Amino acid sequence: MKTTMGNCQAFCNRSKDTNVRVSLPSVCFVWQVSMVVLFGVFVRYNSESDAHWAEYMRQNNITSNTENDFYYRYPSFQDVHVMIFVGFGFLMTFLKRYSFGGVGFNFLIAAFGIQWALLMQGWFHSFNPVDRTIRIGIENLINADFCVAGSLIAYGACLGKVSPVQLMVMTLFGVTLFAVDEYIILNVIHAKDAGGSMTIHMFGAYYGLVISWILYRPNLHQSKRLQGSHYHSDVFAMIGTLFLWLFWPSFNSATANHGDGQHRAAINTYLSLAASVLTAFAISSLSAKKGKLDMVHIQNATLAGGVAMGTAGEFMITPYGSLIVGFCSGILSTFGYLVLSPLLERHLKIQDTCGIHNLHAMPGLLGGIVGAITAATATESVYGKEGLISTFNFVDKFMNRTAGTQGGYQAAGLCVALLFGLGGGMLVGGILKLPIWGDPEDDDCFDDEVYWEMPEDEESIPPVMEYRTQRANQNFDVIETNFSTDIRPV
Amino acid sequence: MKTTMGNCQAFCNRSKDTNVRVSLPSVCFVWQVSMVVLFGVFVRYNSESDAHWAEYMRQNNITSNTENDFYYRYPSFQDVHVMIFVGFGFLMTFLKRYSFGGVGFNFLIAAFGIQWALLMQGWFHSFNPVDRTIRIGIENLINADFCVAGSLIAYGACLGKVSPVQLMVMTLFGVTLFAVDEYIILNVIHAKDAGGSMTIHMFGAYYGLVISWILYRPNLHQSKRLQGSHYHSDVFAMIGTLFLWLFWPSFNSATANHGDGQHRAAINTYLSLAASVLTAFAISSLSAKKGKLDMVHIQNATLAGGVAMGTAGEFMITPYGSLIVGFCSGILSTFGYLVLSPLLERHLKIQDTCGIHNLHAMPGLLGGIVGAITAATATESVYGKEGLISTFNFVDKFMNRTAGTQGGYQAAGLCVALLFGLGGGMLVGGILKLPIWGDPEDDDCFDDEVYWEMPEDEESIPPVMEYRTQRANQNFDVIETNFSTDIRPV
Amino acid sequence: MKTTMGNCQAFCNRSKDTNVRVSLPSVCFVWQVSMVVLFGVFVRYNSESDAHWAEYMRQNNITSNTENDFYYRYPSFQDVHVMIFVGFGFLMTFLKRYSFGGVGFNFLIAAFGIQWALLMQGWFHSFNPVDRTIRIGIENLINADFCVAGSLIAYGACLGKVSPVQLMVMTLFGVTLFAVDEYIILNVIHAKDAGGSMTIHMFGAYYGLVISWILYRPNLHQSKRLQGSHYHSDVFAMIGTLFLWLFWPSFNSATANHGDGQHRAAINTYLSLAASVLTAFAISSLSAKKGKLDMVHIQNATLAGGVAMGTAGEFMITPYGSLIVGFCSGILSTFGYLVLSPLLERHLKIQDTCGIHNLHAMPGLLGGIVGAITAATATESVYGKEGLISTFNFVDKFMNRTAGTQGGYQAAGLCVALLFGLGGGMLVGGILKLPIWGDPEDDDCFDDEVYWEMPEDEESIPPVMEYRTQRANQNFDVIETNFSTDIRPV
Repeated sequence: MKTTMGNCQAFCNRSKDTNVRVSLPSVCFVWQVSMVVLFGVFVRYNSESDAHWAEYMRQNNITSNTENDFYYRYPSFQDVHVMIFVGFGFLMTFLKRYSFGGVGFNFLIAAFGIQWALLMQGWFHSFNPVDRTIRIGIENLINADFCVAGSLIAYGACLGKVSPVQLMVMTLFGVTLFAVDEYIILNVIHAKDAGGSMTIHMFGAYYGLVISWILYRPNLHQSKRLQGSHYHSDVFAMIGTLFLWLFWPSFNSATANHGDGQHRAAINTYLSLAASVLTAFAISSLSAKKGKLDMVHIQNATLAGGVAMGTAGEFMITPYGSLIVGFCSGILSTFGYLVLSPLLERHLKIQDTCGIHNLHAMPGLLGGIVGAITAATATESVYGKEGLISTFNFVDKFMNRTAGTQGGYQAAGLCVALLFGLGGGMLVGGILKLPIWGDPEDDDCFDDEVYWEMPEDEESIPPVMEYRTQRANQNFDVIETNFSTDIRPV
Repeated sequence: MKTTMGNCQAFCNRSKDTNVRVSLPSVCFVWQVSMVVLFGVFVRYNSESDAHWAEYMRQNNITSNTENDFYYRYPSFQDVHVMIFVGFGFLMTFLKRYSFGGVGFNFLIAAFGIQWALLMQGWFHSFNPVDRTIRIGIENLINADFCVAGSLIAYGACLGKVSPVQLMVMTLFGVTLFAVDEYIILNVIHAKDAGGSMTIHMFGAYYGLVISWILYRPNLHQSKRLQGSHYHSDVFAMIGTLFLWLFWPSFNSATANHGDGQHRAAINTYLSLAASVLTAFAISSLSAKKGKLDMVHIQNATLAGGVAMGTAGEFMITPYGSLIVGFCSGILSTFGYLVLSPLLERHLKIQDTCGIHNLHAMPGLLGGIVGAITAATATESVYGKEGLISTFNFVDKFMNRTAGTQGGYQAAGLCVALLFGLGGGMLVGGILKLPIWGDPEDDDCFDDEVYWEMPEDEESIPPVMEYRTQRANQNFDVIETNFSTDIRPV
Repeated sequence: MKTTMGNCQAFCNRSKDTNVRVSLPSVCFVWQVSMVVLFGVFVRYNSESDAHWAEYMRQNNITSNTENDFYYRYPSFQDVHVMIFVGFGFLMTFLKRYSFGGVGFNFLIAAFGIQWALLMQGWFHSFNPVDRTIRIGIENLINADFCVAGSLIAYGACLGKVSPVQLMVMTLFGVTLFAVDEYIILNVIHAKDAGGSMTIHMFGAYYGLVISWILYRPNLHQSKRLQGSHYHSDVFAMIGTLFLWLFWPSFNSATANHGDGQHRAAINTYLSLAASVLTAFAISSLSAKKGKLDMVHIQNATLAGGVAMGTAGEFMITPYGSLIVGFCSGILSTFGYLVLSPLLERHLKIQDTCGIHNLHAMPGLLGGIVGAITAATATESVYGKEGLISTFNFVDKFMNRTAGTQGGYQAAGLCVALLFGLGGGMLVGGILKLPIWGDPEDDDCFDDEVYWEMPEDEESIPPVMEYRTQRANQNFDVIETNFSTDIRPV
């Protein structure tokens, strides 16, 4: 028995080679070259970014450059861009010894994912059948950022436990699934989801949770010494939290209709987020001895109001409706961190590093339901005749759809997102389970040491004895020894 | 005698129960529920964010969505939003052990305050008497952010010495007073104050200073070990400084007139801020042995140019006039940190943690005076006939006001702001003095430990013996002991 | 012999007086007063920021305030502003003990430089010969930020080795040279360079490299203990990296033509940057034992795609062309850090602290070449007749210029930028070599202690014995001693 385990251990050790010197550069180069080729074949500027714009303006009686979509959406695009790279990136720096991996790998996979997203979404949404090209403009860039957000959410569940190569694979499939999922929800079913409660948050969260479930690590407690935060890493994470919180109104309004659509989505999201801050603080304090606040809740659950306003943001949900949604989502999310996360880990074997189930899955679900109800109860007296048509895009083959029916289709969209998340996670989790991707051993998780050159005199993490393995950082001991012998004689 | 003191001590200890487990959640829930109800009764979308916008456009001959105020003000709004939450929040992370409280409580009270501000300001400025509702759009969101800024400034004086519940109370009253004060200054007196030198900075600063004076702690030196900064906490604070400095042109121009008004306010503020950086560095270096710069000055006094340009920013103060204002305010503010702050503490018993007297009160006063002079000397040759009218809004019942008179009213506005700050501070300080709010003991100030769950292996702060009390953090000792026994045998 | 060395040492010690208490305030005040006077004589608002705007609109049949250039460019301006102060500033916080100097001196010289830039560029580009004034608007502010970027790049080569007074002098000359250089390239030669591959990056980099070469410090290894990064300082630097990376599309499009010009420049830069992330990660991993990533590469080389797209960004380089440029520049830049930097230091005696040769000089050169080729191959079928004229501004005396000729002039612009960088660097390096500027000794480089008041209980940097000088921080030892005696008896 012991021998078998020894063999297994030996095999596992062999399979856990974290050297990515061949695989990571190979993947980067192969995929970047593929992008160049595919962009060469398919991608061109659209009429608003092409040098023929002046002629286009004349032909279409456009009298001012301000009508170029660039000026409607560029400020929102930049806010979304900050959320994807700084917001998600810094939110994941909270671990005491995985800040490089948090912000660095987020950078890598987002930069790759947006390129692939431009292609995938382009084929579905911006394909010009005449010359068989994709025509891109500012809205495509926003959508590419949105698309990659799904995979970054999924990364949150796997933070610290996967290799950069696994993340690249996860992103490649994540973006692909997202684009198909989004096409079905927005175009086939014709549901509305400007801020992506369903397409981004629910899909991304379940995609990541299932992957994390398949990659379950029974001995993850071996790296428990690194699973907490550090005083300063918590402050770094607040940078991520605040930029996400601040720019979420731009996120939910970035692709909404010009005029009142963008305006209303920004207001609704602003209000919903404000309410979720209050309830997240309240539940966090209520749950702790002496009422002490927990940074994990403040960093995450305060954002739930933005997630939950992703579908209904552009609807006439009313300002107080937005506050109610934020109110509920802040409570829901904080309860998730307090109650559900430990249960998920113990009973369902889902190790969810960042708690994406609490921040994205549940508030996303709530957002989808709120969207369906708000749509189903829309009336012409509230929206106006034109307003109802333009808000729900009841044109062409959908011109006879009623608000009630739309509510049903919104609910159907929710199911599609859930199915894609679960199914996609199964598929990709299976692929990532293969022992070829260079992921770390259980006692090496959450450690930047594995994939990053570390600064020489790094701050020391006081070792907690019971989890300390034999191969514990020997440099550490040496430094300490020098240190004490150095100062002792004084 | 000894017994009396012992009793007093016992009583004080009892009164300083920092457990906020009941009070903080209660306040959050009661207030958030109140917000939902009040929003339900009063708040609706305005014509630019309502789904009837398309019809409104047709009725008012608006030909382009670009005329929706959203596109004029949303980029500035987002900049202001960043200033309120990241700027103010991170500026208050400079203390070595109060970064969670600095950025976290700022987040809490700002998120609460903006909701209450939408109501209070709405009743005064956006009330539709026909259906008795408040109609909100993007400008309301900006003004709500402005309104809460006053209370955040006041927080600066009290940083580290109050409980989150006190901060909520302070914000509730602060926002209320602000809205009344602002209504009197902008509407009754009809003074101009787009960037809030008077309404935001002077009011907020004196409000906070008086509260801090009433809450005077004679034994604050007991927590002196925590009053300084840490190398990295100073760098965190620079994030706050820079985002405030960078986006101040948006702050002063966000609610200025469309067109030249916003344009000019941005230019003037940009120039004033640049000048105050130079003079703040100069005085900081001049005042120190060997000319070494002090981070406190660099983090704060460099911003004085923005504060001082809050009133005159949209006037024709000329580019060199802006430089002069920045020049003087940078000197004034740095001198405040060097000379006045110690005097205020010693002689007036005002403990001003962040030095808001130097950053907001004095430059705000300067800004108000500059505004009055610039207004009084305005001429039709400089502004043009239309320009003079639109800049000072000389319409309706104010159509016969002259520039000279306007200067007088600007000065009157200054006095109103001062009175509201002082009077409001007295009132609210008295309320916060009650021993029911869970504020910390004198030797527990500036310590996140009191209200936050701390990361387990937090960086240790070397204890300074003379200030160390008997109940000093025992975990700390234990960790140290483990640590030394751990490395000793090596 | 020993005596001679002793004398020399004594002399050197005398010449290395880092006390800037007189010089720094003097320079700040003299220059700020000069700015006030010169602005008073020369600078006025332009027609879009002047209170006569309403009349101007009527006279020029402008029907909407949205046509005010402020609304076309203000969002991009704010992004550029963030890049200059947060981007460049935080990118230079990576050193373990020079974060104050990195972000603080960047703040100082940028705030000074933008004022001088408004004047220098104003005389060349916005001079009104009638009343002999400079008329400024939002585009001038953007260009001032651009102009100062050249000097900030040069600071990167000298980081940690120069005094703030030297930096002020470097900036004064840097801005002056930039303005002349830019006038020759953009107006005389009539090359296009909206994102400044040539005028900003190449000029700034060679200017800084030559200065660093002239200020060569043979004994810089004496401060080697401070040349590395710290775990958290590397995370701080990522703030700089990400804000630079995110807002680079705004940088390259900020001054491009309204409409398709800005739109296309943003898209091209977005794509180029994404590709350079992938190749930077790939080469970084490929070059290290076990494939471990190096933060230096991730912080810097990922940005090369933005630099290299500075000239061709507004051209019809096509989306895949942008990817190719990013692909190559990411490789080029990372190779620079791996191979060229050590060679430059060893053989050419160029000590380039931030590796600006790799991030700015080489990608800037690449960008200039790409721009020349793209311009030379431009055709009317790709751009349209009007598009070709407006993109390359073939009007007035340049109306007969062909695309081929333009390519030649672009190449000529490249040479001018190179010459100005090299020549300017020689001149200014010579001036900065004078022993009057208060620069630090070789073993004091990279240490904030020299010019900043340090927090009392700063985090200790474990001393590396061989480089420790006799005057090693005595406070440090004392603190350690207290600390150990404190915990020992437990």
